[in-house]
Amino acid sequence: MPYDRILLEHGGGGLLSNELIAGTFLPLLKNPLLEPLEDGAVFEAGGAKLCFTTDSFVVQPRFFPGGDIGSLAVHGTVNDLAMCGGTPLALSAGFILEEGFSMAELERIVRSLAEAAKKAGVAVVTGDTKVVPHGAADGLFINTSGIGIVRYGSALSVRSIRPGDAVLLSGPIGEHGAAILSARSELGLVSEVLSDSAPLNGLVERILAASPNIHCMRDATRGGLGAILAEIAGQSGMRITVREASIPIREEVRGICEIFGFDPLFLANEGRMALFCPEEDAEKVLAAMQGHDLGREACRIGTVASHQRGGLVLETVIGGSREIDLPTGELVPRIC
Amino acid sequence: MPYDRILLEHGGGGLLSNELIAGTFLPLLKNPLLEPLEDGAVFEAGGAKLCFTTDSFVVQPRFFPGGDIGSLAVHGTVNDLAMCGGTPLALSAGFILEEGFSMAELERIVRSLAEAAKKAGVAVVTGDTKVVPHGAADGLFINTSGIGIVRYGSALSVRSIRPGDAVLLSGPIGEHGAAILSARSELGLVSEVLSDSAPLNGLVERILAASPNIHCMRDATRGGLGAILAEIAGQSGMRITVREASIPIREEVRGICEIFGFDPLFLANEGRMALFCPEEDAEKVLAAMQGHDLGREACRIGTVASHQRGGLVLETVIGGSREIDLPTGELVPRIC
Repeated sequence: MPYDRILLEHGGGGLLSNELIAGTFLPLLKNPLLEPLEDGAVFEAGGAKLCFTTDSFVVQPRFFPGGDIGSLAVHGTVNDLAMCGGTPLALSAGFILEEGFSMAELERIVRSLAEAAKKAGVAVVTGDTKVVPHGAADGLFINTSGIGIVRYGSALSVRSIRPGDAVLLSGPIGEHGAAILSARSELGLVSEVLSDSAPLNGLVERILAASPNIHCMRDATRGGLGAILAEIAGQSGMRITVREASIPIREEVRGICEIFGFDPLFLANEGRMALFCPEEDAEKVLAAMQGHDLGREACRIGTVASHQRGGLVLETVIGGSREIDLPTGELVPRIC
Repeated sequence: MPYDRILLEHGGGGLLSNELIAGTFLPLLKNPLLEPLEDGAVFEAGGAKLCFTTDSFVVQPRFFPGGDIGSLAVHGTVNDLAMCGGTPLALSAGFILEEGFSMAELERIVRSLAEAAKKAGVAVVTGDTKVVPHGAADGLFINTSGIGIVRYGSALSVRSIRPGDAVLLSGPIGEHGAAILSARSELGLVSEVLSDSAPLNGLVERILAASPNIHCMRDATRGGLGAILAEIAGQSGMRITVREASIPIREEVRGICEIFGFDPLFLANEGRMALFCPEEDAEKVLAAMQGHDLGREACRIGTVASHQRGGLVLETVIGGSREIDLPTGELVPRIC
């Protein structure tokens, strides 16, 4: 075991997160549904094809430009269901509250969670509340789990990715991470970036209706676009080539990254997704994405290459290329 | 709003828990599946009848006589599914870890969780891990959510309870609460009580096979047998009469209750359940329970009375009777 204590980096969505999962959780919980490590598990139940996913939310601050922990808790889980091709059916909400937590703030958070669920077209059907003594938790943590129903015919999975696939991105990256950074900063940043936190199930409906051949979808949360593409490259054994210049990044996000010394490629998103589909379907899928509010700035960013060793390769703006690995440090703790 | 801060009692499963749910959560999350406030939600999905439930676990100490937070996290959710008549299909596990948490202890907990899931015949199919900085959480919290498939014909619900129903109990009460109390105590108690923490789905299978007319089942967790019966009496508007002398309580549990000044009626259980069924089925259901390891000491404890105002009435050992309300204080914080 490489570490004898949990580090913040074990929760960052990068290399150490993967090591923790592969080294500790998977060997003990071993089963064929968990092992693919997709955004959720897909299985049959009583004739229905379901997907199931869970996420805990510990974001700090709890209210940030463009969202709060309540709406984020809905978007995170709805998006994981959507990435499995699932129409969200039902959510659970489990609250861990610190003794002394403000009742007014709790109400504001639950209200936001309820509104986000309503907008995403899903109901919170079951819940749980635990209270721990003052000092045993920082304010409030929320877990949401979700069930979706999968009606899409083909298997959405890293294992479905094929050489020649186009890589599409739904919009500009890094806004959630930048919003959290600027909310925490004491620099008094003028240009406020809003988090991209949003439910992607509507966009995904359009995508799946546009093509019966989508291979894989993934929302770019912790670790950012860089981490999910590096992870997919690793899992699939494919070589993914991405043109840096084609990745949309807002000026304000670039500015915040320069101030804090971060790479926007590894900054978290909570309403952005990448997808893999056959080259011949790329144009119509892109058009479908651009026809939805959350995909207006969707674009083609890369290609899956054949006959080469796996990995993520970034073709840089200045004409070079560099191999991108999973991030090894915790970029921003408590980002979601 | 009666309180402007969260108190420990808001998480105790008693009166304040109910006020928090009825006053804050329900009005905002309003929907017909959540409102019955049963142990889980039951709904149709693609032709299948599913149940869905969630629970967070914050128990302290994490290892206690008879169990640990890992096995408890499985039993709590499996039992909630079982109370809905659901055969557990899949569990999720969401971990919130404090920076610096021992990797060896995490592995021990995950191993216990995995073994408990295996014993209960259910797989953990999806998970999540968050790490918060040192001091932002006390060690480790686990959320498990679960999906079950419901094949039982009649509706298991407080609303199905009828005057004349028999009230059955699966075994002696208060052992989980007593085990936690003795584990926390510095008195060096000699008689160690083991927690009753166990998966009830096997016992429930026997019960449902024995009678097609079970009306309602509830596991007696936080707040104990007293809280769940008082809650059911309140929700159903029925008068439930229970004979104190018929409730099995082990001597060691009585002893610990005397030392700490607790009423075993309100002490938590994690592997005990009560059920309501028509009088004419009571004997065969009881026999079925007694034929299962976890129901060996099952017994009849009371009756639902008609034509009287609702409430829980305890016929005491000395021949009197007293009305039992939902507990108003936090008995034991972080009991589960």
